Amino acid sequence: MIRIAVLGYGYWGPNLARNIADQAAYRLVAIADPNPDRLALASRRHPGVDVVTDPAEALGRGDIDAVAIATPPSTHYPLALEALRQGKHVLVEKPLAETSGQCARLIEEAERRQLTLLVDHIFVYTQAVRKIHELVAQPEFGDILYYDSVRANLGLFQPDVNVLWDLAVHDLSIINQVIPARPVAVSATGMRHFEGVENTAYLTVFFDRPVIAHIGVNWLAPVKIRQVMVCGRKRMIVYDEVEPSEKVKVYDKGVEVDRRANPESARKILISYRTGDVWAPHLEHIEALKTMFGHFAECISNGHQPISGGEAGLRVVKVLEAAEQSLRHRGQPVEISSGTVNG
Amino acid sequence: MIRIAVLGYGYWGPNLARNIADQAAYRLVAIADPNPDRLALASRRHPGVDVVTDPAEALGRGDIDAVAIATPPSTHYPLALEALRQGKHVLVEKPLAETSGQCARLIEEAERRQLTLLVDHIFVYTQAVRKIHELVAQPEFGDILYYDSVRANLGLFQPDVNVLWDLAVHDLSIINQVIPARPVAVSATGMRHFEGVENTAYLTVFFDRPVIAHIGVNWLAPVKIRQVMVCGRKRMIVYDEVEPSEKVKVYDKGVEVDRRANPESARKILISYRTGDVWAPHLEHIEALKTMFGHFAECISNGHQPISGGEAGLRVVKVLEAAEQSLRHRGQPVEISSGTVNG
Amino acid sequence: MIRIAVLGYGYWGPNLARNIADQAAYRLVAIADPNPDRLALASRRHPGVDVVTDPAEALGRGDIDAVAIATPPSTHYPLALEALRQGKHVLVEKPLAETSGQCARLIEEAERRQLTLLVDHIFVYTQAVRKIHELVAQPEFGDILYYDSVRANLGLFQPDVNVLWDLAVHDLSIINQVIPARPVAVSATGMRHFEGVENTAYLTVFFDRPVIAHIGVNWLAPVKIRQVMVCGRKRMIVYDEVEPSEKVKVYDKGVEVDRRANPESARKILISYRTGDVWAPHLEHIEALKTMFGHFAECISNGHQPISGGEAGLRVVKVLEAAEQSLRHRGQPVEISSGTVNG
Amino acid sequence: MIRIAVLGYGYWGPNLARNIADQAAYRLVAIADPNPDRLALASRRHPGVDVVTDPAEALGRGDIDAVAIATPPSTHYPLALEALRQGKHVLVEKPLAETSGQCARLIEEAERRQLTLLVDHIFVYTQAVRKIHELVAQPEFGDILYYDSVRANLGLFQPDVNVLWDLAVHDLSIINQVIPARPVAVSATGMRHFEGVENTAYLTVFFDRPVIAHIGVNWLAPVKIRQVMVCGRKRMIVYDEVEPSEKVKVYDKGVEVDRRANPESARKILISYRTGDVWAPHLEHIEALKTMFGHFAECISNGHQPISGGEAGLRVVKVLEAAEQSLRHRGQPVEISSGTVNG
Repeated sequence: MIRIAVLGYGYWGPNLARNIADQAAYRLVAIADPNPDRLALASRRHPGVDVVTDPAEALGRGDIDAVAIATPPSTHYPLALEALRQGKHVLVEKPLAETSGQCARLIEEAERRQLTLLVDHIFVYTQAVRKIHELVAQPEFGDILYYDSVRANLGLFQPDVNVLWDLAVHDLSIINQVIPARPVAVSATGMRHFEGVENTAYLTVFFDRPVIAHIGVNWLAPVKIRQVMVCGRKRMIVYDEVEPSEKVKVYDKGVEVDRRANPESARKILISYRTGDVWAPHLEHIEALKTMFGHFAECISNGHQPISGGEAGLRVVKVLEAAEQSLRHRGQPVEISSGTVNG
Repeated sequence: MIRIAVLGYGYWGPNLARNIADQAAYRLVAIADPNPDRLALASRRHPGVDVVTDPAEALGRGDIDAVAIATPPSTHYPLALEALRQGKHVLVEKPLAETSGQCARLIEEAERRQLTLLVDHIFVYTQAVRKIHELVAQPEFGDILYYDSVRANLGLFQPDVNVLWDLAVHDLSIINQVIPARPVAVSATGMRHFEGVENTAYLTVFFDRPVIAHIGVNWLAPVKIRQVMVCGRKRMIVYDEVEPSEKVKVYDKGVEVDRRANPESARKILISYRTGDVWAPHLEHIEALKTMFGHFAECISNGHQPISGGEAGLRVVKVLEAAEQSLRHRGQPVEISSGTVNG
Repeated sequence: MIRIAVLGYGYWGPNLARNIADQAAYRLVAIADPNPDRLALASRRHPGVDVVTDPAEALGRGDIDAVAIATPPSTHYPLALEALRQGKHVLVEKPLAETSGQCARLIEEAERRQLTLLVDHIFVYTQAVRKIHELVAQPEFGDILYYDSVRANLGLFQPDVNVLWDLAVHDLSIINQVIPARPVAVSATGMRHFEGVENTAYLTVFFDRPVIAHIGVNWLAPVKIRQVMVCGRKRMIVYDEVEPSEKVKVYDKGVEVDRRANPESARKILISYRTGDVWAPHLEHIEALKTMFGHFAECISNGHQPISGGEAGLRVVKVLEAAEQSLRHRGQPVEISSGTVNG
Repeated sequence: MIRIAVLGYGYWGPNLARNIADQAAYRLVAIADPNPDRLALASRRHPGVDVVTDPAEALGRGDIDAVAIATPPSTHYPLALEALRQGKHVLVEKPLAETSGQCARLIEEAERRQLTLLVDHIFVYTQAVRKIHELVAQPEFGDILYYDSVRANLGLFQPDVNVLWDLAVHDLSIINQVIPARPVAVSATGMRHFEGVENTAYLTVFFDRPVIAHIGVNWLAPVKIRQVMVCGRKRMIVYDEVEPSEKVKVYDKGVEVDRRANPESARKILISYRTGDVWAPHLEHIEALKTMFGHFAECISNGHQPISGGEAGLRVVKVLEAAEQSLRHRGQPVEISSGTVNG
């Protein structure tokens, strides 16, 4: 039984608390939030749980084994670091921290103390992304050609991170899982229409192999869009998170290049298409948070590195750092350093 | 009665011929195409019309007043120039020509000879874009914030132009019509997965006002997507060309920025959203080609400049030229010269 | 503060319990279910609440003011009757009871004891149906011409009621609320493909005015469909419960009948159509159960009759009784008696 | 080369003429229509073709081998009969005639003269219905359980036939092709909201096997719906004609009935569901009219009976006759006679 506290009971924290309460591996012992109204609601929903305004109260308790951090991004690093220092396993919302240096520091601390550090890259725990991961790895998929994503909706404007850190982070975590290539450079464009941070942004990621990724993110869209295409040479996937069913569709479509074609008429006939059936693999209805908390408990128990551990969190933050630099120079390409915390 | 010839009876030419045959203002007198099978089909559909393999035959005839050119892009310039020299009015597929220099040359020739030169920027003749134009100009729309478009489908790979010239050209013609600002720079990324030209590309356009446009185009997508968002401060439009009805939806949604907010808590409460009804204005079912050919006949008759005349064609080609340069340098921003052919 | 027990913690009971826990007007004091696994889950989610296997335990307690009954339909009548006899306010899942006689008995008991009896006709508490009710009542809607509904999905086969009692009941409760006419007869067809009850059925309701209702319900459909059309002479509504947004769409379409038309050519030109804009009114995101429990608390407090009180429950059951009779005779029309419990 | 005339150039006739012109097996020699405006349009589109106001002119010509009849339903019988008498092959719009007696008369005439009589049951020539036919016949589909269809749109009110004859006829022709069972009875309900014929109707068809069909048709719907479900014990099909792609979807879903279940708890556990992948078979893009005219030419040439010959037309009209009778008595079931013209 893992005794756990939830830090932050705003937008996402209640989902963490609800999932923890449903799993027998955990006991939810405390919820921290500065807002008394939120604490009152937490108290009504979870009658036996301690509610506190200061997360330090929870971090200081000896009877707590782990914390789940769902506070604003700028507080991830200090809270996670303090939690690790207090010997607690840490599950933290994305992004892991605000800089790659902070990420590296958290990874080191968790390693030294042999604690589990898991970043809530929630999409890698969805049945959809797990299925996509499996499909892309099959030879029938062919070489992967591109990853294209649009994530748009109205709000919520974040005060301390721009729309790339808020939404593109999901795609970068999926790409980290699914694309067998290393990001080498980015070009990002965008705009801050109002005071504060960019609310509309576009990010192209270049890799060390002939595959390209593009992510469009937007807090100012009238409709909610969560549409991803992953294209292989022989099969193509459309993944629409907004669809209530058939979220993942596999198209048996591809491109054939005929190199033996008559050189004279070559340019016109080189490339042909193949179009076949469409297939929506059955996905179990399992909430991603349930899977993630199950995985967190396992990692705590067996000491294994989580699928979305500190290194995954670091890789994502590195791309975001480069993207932010490119964004300030109208798409000027920026290289991504290849070093990891361990080498 | 305008006596007209159609040059090129491949993918698009049959649509031109069909619309010409339906309009009393025209008499379709000749169809040219190098492919005998296509000419046989043309002949069966239009029994009385002359079919020729060489467009020069049609261009040389004195009893032809106008030509509609639907041949590959690289032939637009020589055919249009020769047609103008022969004193014929010209309707030409997009893009007007392969370079801005060629565009300027065609504009000059048409002006000197007082002939009508119309580029088939087909979207500006759709009921949908006409309605969007009207909506964006209304004060209730608020300042325009962004234009975002995705055009994707499987094929057709063009041998002589890349996917930007093939698909982004549509958006650039719409932007030219709808956005009251001048493009000043672009950043473009993309990839040629196979021999030949880029099949996947992304283009950001920066303007001389705080509005941004982004266009994603793709010949390798498993599904056909034609989705455009035009966002204003007070209203937002989603335009989906693939939808059989309700192609244009207007969202009474907007963003309010409260500048008087408490400075301390400011960043969190500055921006709020307003969400209201959604509205799909009724659009008449009129084929855009019908509208365009009606407009062409009017311009020939009254000598007015077409909505999509040579200057519009030139402005679009200028952005495409800059985009192609940026594309070769991974998104490096490229400025767009402001000069027009007339000054 | 209303002290309340939830009877039945199967499919729907957890939603009742969750909503009760969220509302300050209630205190959830007991949950009854015969299944120990369900009780264990209830206990984990609602730590302070008494869990019991026998509903009689909850009904017998003097410190309980009200019960929410979410047990199988065949138990609604005995449990509701006993609860009323014990002086408790009753909220009961649809259908109110298995026969109109039972419904009348419950109504009498509640009236005599001045207790609130509310049937969970959940749809009348949705923002969508409330908006439809408002729209249909406006003169711009014109006379209502028909109500057409399809409710289909795979499962859940009910052991003790057929698909009409399970799904058509929703539409009958909406019709009861929205259509200003009295049902006078029904024709129903259907099939039981397997042992047990009908899993596919179709119901036509005739009224005392020139309006018709048709409801198709199905437990054997591969996709979930919840599509309702409400058609007026001047406006038409499509209500799709499955859509995540724009659930209710209003079409400014109508039919004009020209009675002065030339008698000779009359039949061809009598009827013409008018097509205008489409409009999706903004609906607040409020869970219907929240609205219903708020309404239940109000009715308990002020003694008013609920929107979906016993009489509404009775009217729905009367139509279902007639439908079941027609169903056994391949659509043979069956009249509906007009008497109510009070006259 | 089949020399053919098109009778009627209203809504559907132009599609017939266009397809005839495109096929080398035919020569379109005449078009008849009483309306001079329609004839002028026909003349512009088909310059070499004779246009006449009176169909008798075409029927009397000795140089015409076949006619395609697209006139109002009430004229199908006299025109088709006269055409057969004049020794011409006949392709006639649905319904074949207004009564089963008339249908029988046409079948006899065609048989005696060894002429081809084909009813334009257009849907049986679509790639979608051909695929469905193939799927339903496979053992993996399991026994067919039901056919459910909704066809709705705004207009066109027909003066001389009600909505069943106009729209349900499509489903009856598909059912005749796809369901391996004989219709034995119908129950139909509906309403005529205005003068004239029923504009909204519902039809249940009972068969000599445990399968049921239901068809809802409507000329007063704000949206166009063409949704068909064909459900088997092991697989289920959804066919949406309005979808631009993936019109036919096959759901690997089914129902298992466990007859060995514990009798006591039997009713609850008897039936379980199986849910698997969804699959959209690739369909060639071939216009159904093209397929139908190819088939007509083949039948004329080899003397074979068309897929949608006179007998198919008769079977459909028999169901419609029974439906109309039931419609007048609020769903009263009406039996369908089993006799065919030949026995």
